[in-house]
Amino acid sequence: MAHDCLFCKIAAGEIPSSKVYEDEDVLAFRDINPVAPVHVLVIPKQHLGSVADLRPEHTELLAKLFAAVQRVAAETGVAETGYRVVTNHGKDSGQQVLHLHLHVLGGRTLGPVA
Amino acid sequence: MAHDCLFCKIAAGEIPSSKVYEDEDVLAFRDINPVAPVHVLVIPKQHLGSVADLRPEHTELLAKLFAAVQRVAAETGVAETGYRVVTNHGKDSGQQVLHLHLHVLGGRTLGPVA
Repeated sequence: MAHDCLFCKIAAGEIPSSKVYEDEDVLAFRDINPVAPVHVLVIPKQHLGSVADLRPEHTELLAKLFAAVQRVAAETGVAETGYRVVTNHGKDSGQQVLHLHLHVLGGRTLGPVA
Repeated sequence: MAHDCLFCKIAAGEIPSSKVYEDEDVLAFRDINPVAPVHVLVIPKQHLGSVADLRPEHTELLAKLFAAVQRVAAETGVAETGYRVVTNHGKDSGQQVLHLHLHVLGGRTLGPVA
């Protein structure tokens, strides 16, 4: 766990979250400030700062994150209507929490990608 | 190759593109209608309809796509300033080409994720 990382604390259960999916390596929970009817964050339980920190040893973890995205889409009812997956890195992107997270967004017609 | 798939034709070199990165399995090229100063699409050369079609056998390919994202970010000068990675699936998302692609966006302060 990274010191004072909000998402590490959520992954550890120290801070409550509205869970959508969880396994040994991955947690998915509803964004506390949703920007769409479905807005779920999929995170690795281990600390990675962002997509820029992915390395070859995270290959299986990355696949698990995207398998979780598909489960989240099915469980929130957007698998058929459509959804967007977004991850931000760094200042220009608006990344707010420095722990890798995939936004899963849907439930309405979505706006521009940037 | 999928019949009449625009990105399969770009991957095969039948339609020209502004390439940023290419290897055996992955191609990255500039979006023809960019919505940010940096707007590159990273695609698998093999046809997959969207993120919803990822299966366990695509684990290594998925890792290669994200390794390409990092290379694209470095080569386009947004690795330090920040960037966003987006992929769309289905009608509500605005997916336009039915071949899996990761948008890599940066070069300005980006707007909302949806």
